[in-house]
Amino acid sequence: NSKLKIFSLNSNQELAEEISEHAGIPLGKSSVTHFSDGEIQINIEESIRGYDVFIVQSTSQPVNENLMELLIMIDAVKRASARTVNVVMPYYGYARQDRKARSREPITAKLVANLLETAGATRVIVLDLHAPQIQGFFDILIDHLVAVPLLSDYFLNESGVDLENVIIVSPDHGGVTRARKMADRLKAPIAIIDKRRPKPNVAEVMNIVGNVEGKTAIIIDDIIDTAGTISIAASALIESGAKEVFACCTHPVLSGPAVQRINDSVIKELIITNSIALPDEKKSPKIKQLSVARLLAETIVRVHEQKSVSTLFD
Amino acid sequence: NSKLKIFSLNSNQELAEEISEHAGIPLGKSSVTHFSDGEIQINIEESIRGYDVFIVQSTSQPVNENLMELLIMIDAVKRASARTVNVVMPYYGYARQDRKARSREPITAKLVANLLETAGATRVIVLDLHAPQIQGFFDILIDHLVAVPLLSDYFLNESGVDLENVIIVSPDHGGVTRARKMADRLKAPIAIIDKRRPKPNVAEVMNIVGNVEGKTAIIIDDIIDTAGTISIAASALIESGAKEVFACCTHPVLSGPAVQRINDSVIKELIITNSIALPDEKKSPKIKQLSVARLLAETIVRVHEQKSVSTLFD
Ligand SMILES: Nc1ncnc2c1ncn2[C@@H]1O[C@H](COP(=O)(O)O)[C@@H](O)[C@H]1O
Ligand SMILES: Nc1ncnc2c1ncn2[C@@H]1O[C@H](COP(=O)(O)O)[C@@H](O)[C@H]1O
Repeated sequence: NSKLKIFSLNSNQELAEEISEHAGIPLGKSSVTHFSDGEIQINIEESIRGYDVFIVQSTSQPVNENLMELLIMIDAVKRASARTVNVVMPYYGYARQDRKARSREPITAKLVANLLETAGATRVIVLDLHAPQIQGFFDILIDHLVAVPLLSDYFLNESGVDLENVIIVSPDHGGVTRARKMADRLKAPIAIIDKRRPKPNVAEVMNIVGNVEGKTAIIIDDIIDTAGTISIAASALIESGAKEVFACCTHPVLSGPAVQRINDSVIKELIITNSIALPDEKKSPKIKQLSVARLLAETIVRVHEQKSVSTLFD
Repeated sequence: NSKLKIFSLNSNQELAEEISEHAGIPLGKSSVTHFSDGEIQINIEESIRGYDVFIVQSTSQPVNENLMELLIMIDAVKRASARTVNVVMPYYGYARQDRKARSREPITAKLVANLLETAGATRVIVLDLHAPQIQGFFDILIDHLVAVPLLSDYFLNESGVDLENVIIVSPDHGGVTRARKMADRLKAPIAIIDKRRPKPNVAEVMNIVGNVEGKTAIIIDDIIDTAGTISIAASALIESGAKEVFACCTHPVLSGPAVQRINDSVIKELIITNSIALPDEKKSPKIKQLSVARLLAETIVRVHEQKSVSTLFD
């Protein structure tokens, strides 16, 4: 792999190391430290002149710190005369701020796209954007990977569930396309959770569209954040006669009470990826993490070698 | 003041309130909160369609948080159809990363300029940039204010020092122009501290260029960060016969051991501005803070009314 270099920043170093192993090249040498006043100081410690450089960073919590680290690194790589500056963002922070839902709101997902471009990124590689439309926020190249095959393969090969008796559940209307893709792979039917607020300031009602009676329900979502919705959805599925409930998602944001809620819920197992690193205090016997390292490493190598990446996520 | 609106963010709310009082208009209503996962949520709670909007924010510590708050606010203000988006940055973070001092370093001061522009700022108002060349990093309008008059007036009118017996000291070669300006106002001579490292890995030697014997020395700098240099410089001045040493600066970064060092030093009094808010734990009887609120309020009103601001800082 000549003239290819992969650098890790601080959000997800374990994943970056795994990617480098799969790609078969050592991580580039750089240091990210802080000056006494908290300003970020970045140094790239080897020449990257003429290289295709890939920077691995998820803009997960602390999102602003991780984003600034990324922008400053992009600036440094650009000024070091890299041939291309490729940003590998397994988790794209601020993706949910993707439209003006109310007057005078920012559209931070678009702002972030502009900031990456301005800093000097020439390509971004992302995984399961909250809304696929965010691809259109970029004028630079973008490759959009999906984790459905990885999550599906787990259920097909490792989970031990009775594949004849599965139903895939979308926790909201926005996620039906994703649920449909998983259902195709598992040759299973789908159900949809239809949330409705009868009146303002009245609790939401969860109505299940589809028959889950006696089934193993697998809820699939892109992000699990505070895990409020998914825990309640799981209970609603059991109340509607589901035999057991699994949940899976690409991005384990798991903020605030999330892990406690998962542990206390009727969810049997939660399958996540390592797009966001899971700190030790968030680990739980109920939570199983799959790695996207091979997918990302393959993508990096293929992009560098100008080979098609589409077979990776079809 | 029709169609003029001033908003405060979180870095320096006291200063923003003072500015609003001097300008005679209440601060605009907005909220800056965080989602459960730490992402910033901004809401502007009144119409600003067609307004000249001024956003007051110093990118002081926590610099990355404050900068992202500012960028997202700029995006929101722009999308809310403001006529102009003016950023008032009393302290411009990352200003010291203004050139490639070593290979493969970023130029973060330029990156920040580009980010502000990309987000949608149409003008920035700054105070004592670490290097005046940073003005040229912007393609948008910039007004560069200076605090020398404010600091000088304190010594002329309030400090009680014998004005016949003062010498203004620049702590390094880069600060001589600033020291010269203060010396003109105080009708005083100048001295320069000439730091030299005789050999690598040997302590710096401080040589004082100019005669400070029996004088009241006033050191002036733009930023005091860890206060290491200034404390040693003050001792060197006393050793060279200065009667007493005052210090002053525009931007009290005061990180790490700074306040302790000031307290332990021979410095009689440190005069600073409120370009950066001073948290209670950094307050000290030796540290006297002057307000730039009037200067900034005047500038805001004059910019809005399209009147010259040059008389404010000549
Ligand atoms: N970090 C966040 N945490 C929770 N909610 C968010 C976050 N960012 C944006 N939102 C809100 O989530 C909604 C978008 O989610 P969705 O409707 O699933 O696309 C918008 O109304 C946003 O205001
Ligand atoms: N936040 C910071 N704290 C301390 N030093 C810095 C900081 N940012 C940049 N620098 C360094 O300070 C030097 C610039 O300071 P100066 O020579 O006074 O313009 C450069 O070598 C930078 O690497």
